[in-house]
Amino acid sequence: MLIRHPYLLFLGDVPDQLSAKTAQGIVDWRRDWCLGQLRLPGCEADTGLPDMTVQQAADAGAKTLIVGVVNAGGVLPEHWIGVIQQALAAGLDVASGLHVRLSSIPAIAETARECGRELFDVRHSDQKFAVGKGTKRSGMRLLTVGTDCSVGKKYAALALEKEMRARGFDADFKATGQTGVFISGRGVAIDAVVADFISGAVEWISPAADISHWDLIEGQGSLFHPSFAGVSLGLLHGAQADAFVVCHEPTRKTMRNVAHPLPSIREVIDMTVRLGALTNPSIRPIGISVNTQALDEKAATDYLKRLQDEHFLPAADPIRFGVGSIVERIAADFPLTRGAVKAG
Amino acid sequence: MLIRHPYLLFLGDVPDQLSAKTAQGIVDWRRDWCLGQLRLPGCEADTGLPDMTVQQAADAGAKTLIVGVVNAGGVLPEHWIGVIQQALAAGLDVASGLHVRLSSIPAIAETARECGRELFDVRHSDQKFAVGKGTKRSGMRLLTVGTDCSVGKKYAALALEKEMRARGFDADFKATGQTGVFISGRGVAIDAVVADFISGAVEWISPAADISHWDLIEGQGSLFHPSFAGVSLGLLHGAQADAFVVCHEPTRKTMRNVAHPLPSIREVIDMTVRLGALTNPSIRPIGISVNTQALDEKAATDYLKRLQDEHFLPAADPIRFGVGSIVERIAADFPLTRGAVKAG
Repeated sequence: MLIRHPYLLFLGDVPDQLSAKTAQGIVDWRRDWCLGQLRLPGCEADTGLPDMTVQQAADAGAKTLIVGVVNAGGVLPEHWIGVIQQALAAGLDVASGLHVRLSSIPAIAETARECGRELFDVRHSDQKFAVGKGTKRSGMRLLTVGTDCSVGKKYAALALEKEMRARGFDADFKATGQTGVFISGRGVAIDAVVADFISGAVEWISPAADISHWDLIEGQGSLFHPSFAGVSLGLLHGAQADAFVVCHEPTRKTMRNVAHPLPSIREVIDMTVRLGALTNPSIRPIGISVNTQALDEKAATDYLKRLQDEHFLPAADPIRFGVGSIVERIAADFPLTRGAVKAG
Repeated sequence: MLIRHPYLLFLGDVPDQLSAKTAQGIVDWRRDWCLGQLRLPGCEADTGLPDMTVQQAADAGAKTLIVGVVNAGGVLPEHWIGVIQQALAAGLDVASGLHVRLSSIPAIAETARECGRELFDVRHSDQKFAVGKGTKRSGMRLLTVGTDCSVGKKYAALALEKEMRARGFDADFKATGQTGVFISGRGVAIDAVVADFISGAVEWISPAADISHWDLIEGQGSLFHPSFAGVSLGLLHGAQADAFVVCHEPTRKTMRNVAHPLPSIREVIDMTVRLGALTNPSIRPIGISVNTQALDEKAATDYLKRLQDEHFLPAADPIRFGVGSIVERIAADFPLTRGAVKAG
């Protein structure tokens, strides 16, 4: 599965910016893949892209219409169907992150077939995987893990990709969630895979590679989250991570959507090493990525400094201060993966 | 989903006894639910049940035809379709443990609709689950865990159900795999559930219950198996186990189908306690269940004795010596769950 760009981002008529979080993530990380946005009357979201009709986008070379919004219930409103059919008729593929499958809507499925276009439902997986084997693959892998869900694991992996590439590393972001799939044009929403194939799907996402190549694998959930820890563990085993970055949000009191307290960063490091060693005995923590948005600048700097001293690891806020310190640690610990470029 | 009994077991024309393992498991544990077996010419499996035609079984009151065999590739051979249609026409539901869905075969789906009968594909799950919440539920739960796959977790849970019921406990086996689903007439093949819902599905299988009631939950995989540990962890978190029994096969050298060595029983106990505490802080090991088939009687007895001394836990072979000692430990540790019956 490869979602072709450039994209036209469809925002429908969603009532707020939060509903267009996926589209915004695509713009944040792949602005140059996006030609414009298509909004219906009443839409209260705005990614800042130029507004375009389907025809304008098609004329400008758009390859895929991305339904990058969530709406109540995950259903596709009746009045969006016409736009999707228009896009198919204009020669675009359509990719959706909604819970409902595009292919389950007869009018859309039929138009796609007639026009010879592809439908991508990134929340679903029809891909057949093998069960994970746990056999060591060549190449280097970094996994972002978390003290909780929604603590910046995707953001950290993408920030590392950008910074590592800038410093001459051969590094690719590997998506395991729907927004990440749109951002990289490929990948698998790992939480949609049948349970038996979690680790196998990750082995497929991140196959054997050149020994100096880094896959930067987007983590999901947390080993300490009672809803999703199974996904996180299968992901860890499939990733065979050589290195991991712990992502954290310091003001959160309980795990997302449940009453459980957050684990400490120390606990996450220990458990990740302990469990990850099953498929890669040399797994090690390489940095801490913190969303310090809720702290003022002084408090944020102090907090990161404290983490750094406590764990002997670089601690960074990828949005506020960048991930340079983590990349320097990667360069120091894995000097043979530096590629052709000298230290920055 | 409730598969109605009595059953007629369909063995097709499979080439050996191993291919009918599922059917044999049903006979071993629910002989009184089985009226007979239906074999086609060339069948080399035999469960020991009387041979019956569809009509004979229907006349005797059979409610469901069980396709309790595996065959190469998991497909349904063409020449089995007629028998399944016959069963539907005779008023039986049909339940299958094959990889292929009965409902995906047009002739079968149509006959089922015409006859108003149900099709059960126990390797697939169309059930919608909520994500697991991790909120403590009332009632007691025991989970069988393993050093590996296929070390007797289902067998141990069923043996405990039998022995605990005989001693006056209120105890129910809860199936999480396909054979278990046939044996209990309900349950979910947990490895077929979408990854996000592993723990939620287990919460659904084992809902809140009377405080003295035991659910004996069939474990899957192993926390140390690189292919399936995610399933095992989601299952552990969803089960909120008060107690667990470690299942083991002493002659196995590597984990099933992979090159990884087996963990020790000690490692399994420690990791299960450590990870299980997330949803039940009072989780504890309550016994060890060993398949000693490969050892002679003296060696088996010595081995169990050694485990018992080493772990301060009753160690039993459920097939050879029964699980009485484990049930005695349950009675001692959880005296309020003994029900109305006095100590045996």
